[in-house]
Amino acid sequence: MATTAVQTTEVPWLTDKEQAAWRSYIFTAKLVLAEMERGMAQHGLSGTDYGVLVCLSEAPQRRMRMSELSQTMLLEKSRLSHQITRMEREGLVRRQSCPDDRRGQFAVLTDQGWETIRRVAPHHVELVRSVFIDRLTPEQLDQLTEMFTPLQTSIRAQCPKDETEC
Amino acid sequence: MATTAVQTTEVPWLTDKEQAAWRSYIFTAKLVLAEMERGMAQHGLSGTDYGVLVCLSEAPQRRMRMSELSQTMLLEKSRLSHQITRMEREGLVRRQSCPDDRRGQFAVLTDQGWETIRRVAPHHVELVRSVFIDRLTPEQLDQLTEMFTPLQTSIRAQCPKDETEC
Repeated sequence: MATTAVQTTEVPWLTDKEQAAWRSYIFTAKLVLAEMERGMAQHGLSGTDYGVLVCLSEAPQRRMRMSELSQTMLLEKSRLSHQITRMEREGLVRRQSCPDDRRGQFAVLTDQGWETIRRVAPHHVELVRSVFIDRLTPEQLDQLTEMFTPLQTSIRAQCPKDETEC
Repeated sequence: MATTAVQTTEVPWLTDKEQAAWRSYIFTAKLVLAEMERGMAQHGLSGTDYGVLVCLSEAPQRRMRMSELSQTMLLEKSRLSHQITRMEREGLVRRQSCPDDRRGQFAVLTDQGWETIRRVAPHHVELVRSVFIDRLTPEQLDQLTEMFTPLQTSIRAQCPKDETEC
């Protein structure tokens, strides 16, 4: 958040319009993410658990390389490793060695993981609709895609890989 | 995230356009928030620390009732209390009793807190510009304000107060 109260001359401060856009954006982002967490918690999952289940459920053979999953999920490798260990304990995923890469590993969706996402996904969609999609017009949704698809790509491109969560 | 891989007939699934908008939005939100955290960590602050400093620096007499700060910061009261205790230890804020409400308390910005936000705010603005503002057009910024100002208000209105972080 920028603030006029401590304005200095060193950097081009945000204009009123920029500040309005930034603040409405960033507060809404926090609210939406918190609503998603709360919704998933009712089904015994964190938002990250759900994200991993989605990624694996959509991948060929319902499995992904840990390195690829790390990038898709925006989690640093060590944190993803803890996440997968926890989900393994819950029976949702399992690890599998990569035959062509001795150091590589897959995360694989188990049958229980598949059943879990089949059960929870409709509730997730309902939540996404009620919190976000149904409150915006089709034109606004197109505007979002147009804005955030390239923005996401450019932020990802500058993220230091394997260093921090990003 | 919705996924066609586990599509069922119980709820109106997201259309391709809705899914594209949702995914670009939610991934960008996570990226932007992570970039903000990382940027503030370089100055020894969390994103929440910075948010509290901003709120107090803009408030009359540089202080806010804890209950009001809790709502503005989207933090449940007990979590805000821990946050303020930690920031008190760092000398950034102090608590003050409300003279007209024995159970009420203010969080007050200290001189050190004021100096901290004066020092860090220009870096924060630079980050907000480089990660977000400067990657969007003025028209897109207006679109965001138009979308997210009412969206934020309506999500806040349905959040259960004092129960969960939202």
